[in-house]
Amino acid sequence: MLILSNEEIESFLSIDKCINALEKAYASWDEGKAINRPRTDLVMPSLNGSGVYAFKSMEAGLYDPPIVAMRINSDIIRWQQQGGRVIKTKVPAAPGDKYVGLVMLFSTLTGEPLAIFPDGVVQRMRVASSSALAARYLARQDASTLAIFGSGWQAGSHLPAMCAVRSIKRVNVFSPTKTNREAFVKEITQKVSADVRPVDSAEDAVRDADIIAATTNSLTRVINPEWVRPGIHLTCVRVPELGDETIQKIDRLVIHSRQHAPENYIAGFGDQGIESHDAIDIIRKGPAQAREAKVEHPFWLASPELRDLVIGRAQGRKNAQESTCFLNNIGIGLQFAAVGAAVLAEAEKKGAGHEIPTDWFLETVHP
Amino acid sequence: MLILSNEEIESFLSIDKCINALEKAYASWDEGKAINRPRTDLVMPSLNGSGVYAFKSMEAGLYDPPIVAMRINSDIIRWQQQGGRVIKTKVPAAPGDKYVGLVMLFSTLTGEPLAIFPDGVVQRMRVASSSALAARYLARQDASTLAIFGSGWQAGSHLPAMCAVRSIKRVNVFSPTKTNREAFVKEITQKVSADVRPVDSAEDAVRDADIIAATTNSLTRVINPEWVRPGIHLTCVRVPELGDETIQKIDRLVIHSRQHAPENYIAGFGDQGIESHDAIDIIRKGPAQAREAKVEHPFWLASPELRDLVIGRAQGRKNAQESTCFLNNIGIGLQFAAVGAAVLAEAEKKGAGHEIPTDWFLETVHP
Repeated sequence: MLILSNEEIESFLSIDKCINALEKAYASWDEGKAINRPRTDLVMPSLNGSGVYAFKSMEAGLYDPPIVAMRINSDIIRWQQQGGRVIKTKVPAAPGDKYVGLVMLFSTLTGEPLAIFPDGVVQRMRVASSSALAARYLARQDASTLAIFGSGWQAGSHLPAMCAVRSIKRVNVFSPTKTNREAFVKEITQKVSADVRPVDSAEDAVRDADIIAATTNSLTRVINPEWVRPGIHLTCVRVPELGDETIQKIDRLVIHSRQHAPENYIAGFGDQGIESHDAIDIIRKGPAQAREAKVEHPFWLASPELRDLVIGRAQGRKNAQESTCFLNNIGIGLQFAAVGAAVLAEAEKKGAGHEIPTDWFLETVHP
Repeated sequence: MLILSNEEIESFLSIDKCINALEKAYASWDEGKAINRPRTDLVMPSLNGSGVYAFKSMEAGLYDPPIVAMRINSDIIRWQQQGGRVIKTKVPAAPGDKYVGLVMLFSTLTGEPLAIFPDGVVQRMRVASSSALAARYLARQDASTLAIFGSGWQAGSHLPAMCAVRSIKRVNVFSPTKTNREAFVKEITQKVSADVRPVDSAEDAVRDADIIAATTNSLTRVINPEWVRPGIHLTCVRVPELGDETIQKIDRLVIHSRQHAPENYIAGFGDQGIESHDAIDIIRKGPAQAREAKVEHPFWLASPELRDLVIGRAQGRKNAQESTCFLNNIGIGLQFAAVGAAVLAEAEKKGAGHEIPTDWFLETVHP
């Protein structure tokens, strides 16, 4: 069984490979040649104070390549105020102040585990690749200016991903903290041919933008309704970044996945847990309100999904005047199967990672 | 992170420890101090001929000890005729003709993975321990003769487990193949003080029995309705072993878990998969019938659960005349959390297993 690190994966995994692997996987899924188990969240109070412990898992299988991927997160989560917004943060509580997110790959031919690796690089690559794949169908062909909100991990993958599907000449980066956006621009500028600049306000970022990408972890609105102009393409990684008012102004909206809102199992809430759009945030409201939170799906869940675009069942951008949006509303295991399989193929080609005995994970007894 | 083998676990894990760990976990679950994510099955056609590939997962968390356990099975499954019955078998298709079943433990204090081990020993210990725990509340106090059907893995754990909760003097073992039952008796007889004998027919096994334990992998009835006599206690590991006619004759029936039938995600059956009592067997019927198989839960799902017995909400055996039955209808992640935590505690005490760097499974990036 192969053990890989984030650094190794980052060194050989290209955004183009990820986008192509995802495009193929969405089409296979639609043909019934892939399966996806929606995410479940298992939530418990954190015993050392504020916040919660959350165990998330999801998995998916592909016929070709014959692989199942499971993605696991084992997180300590807290909420805090930052720059006037409520931000959800994961606490690096594992030894060495680290996080725990894993992808495991299994062969559907033999059942054996093939690889295990941290999810960090694959996580951001699959999110950005899905956003880029959507932009391929929804952004104007001549889109050349990109506005990025955020200067973190997702900003770092979305910027090159958008450059991979459109000829981006100029990128405006805004995030509330000046030093963050400047440091981000300094680093990312070496990775793309576009002219990347930090800007001092959200308005400066969006003024000439053809594409606006919100890549933050904000739980409140980032994209103002007045930025929805003719010809614009919006993309975001969290529903709250967009908000209902902005969503309602958009001509053509596509979401990532409709039927895969996470199921939550929260201690103290009975057998079935409670359901909500976001698995974790609900617990902040406290038991009484949380029990009442079984709302109907919001209206945007009736929108087409990314796979509808990929197979041509849903219309992409129709003309240069439309405003379009891709709402990357939730991740699915299928993305990890597609990108994970690409990681494994590349690792084998490069001889990357190190092997531990597969036999440790096998057994002679019929379980 | 600790790696353990089935052999190591078998060497130090006692049935008493498992029964006690489970009893505590069921009570915690009822108090809202444990959570359980029902099993999901992800099923794909096996590419090398008949049968299917199935990826099963379930997980549960305990407050005390602060642990989450995930149990994974990655199986190639076939069906075959054997002794006039349809038997479901797992094919050992992994290198060295092995099976793939794993338990992973995580800390809810730090998020880090604590241990990983094959599920075989823990699997059979948790099933037998649940059956024994139920027998503690349902079998006659003076039960002394046990009939066992089957000579496999589950028979080998149920026999000592039943001896742990009642003073069993005599055990009659029946399974269709003479050499199997004789070999089984020869091996097990060293592990218990009871007089264990192979018998030539099912009738010989049950004639004087106070407890009848069906521990087979049969998909058709094993326990005949006429064996339901006053004072008898029945226990079984699969619903079909019992069958509706036998179930209807029983005075007091308790099941393992009501609300946790597996959800199935089967390629080609659309997004939501299909639901059935047994995740895998449905696929044998073929797509058309499988789609129509969304039947209502059978009537016995209205019975109390094992945890109701443990906390005293459901009545145990009321008198010596009642016929009682424990239907171990489905496994839940909670059992793996309880028994898995016991395994880890014992392994640490004994210095068993070997360590691999936890750091391989951690990351510095916010995933």
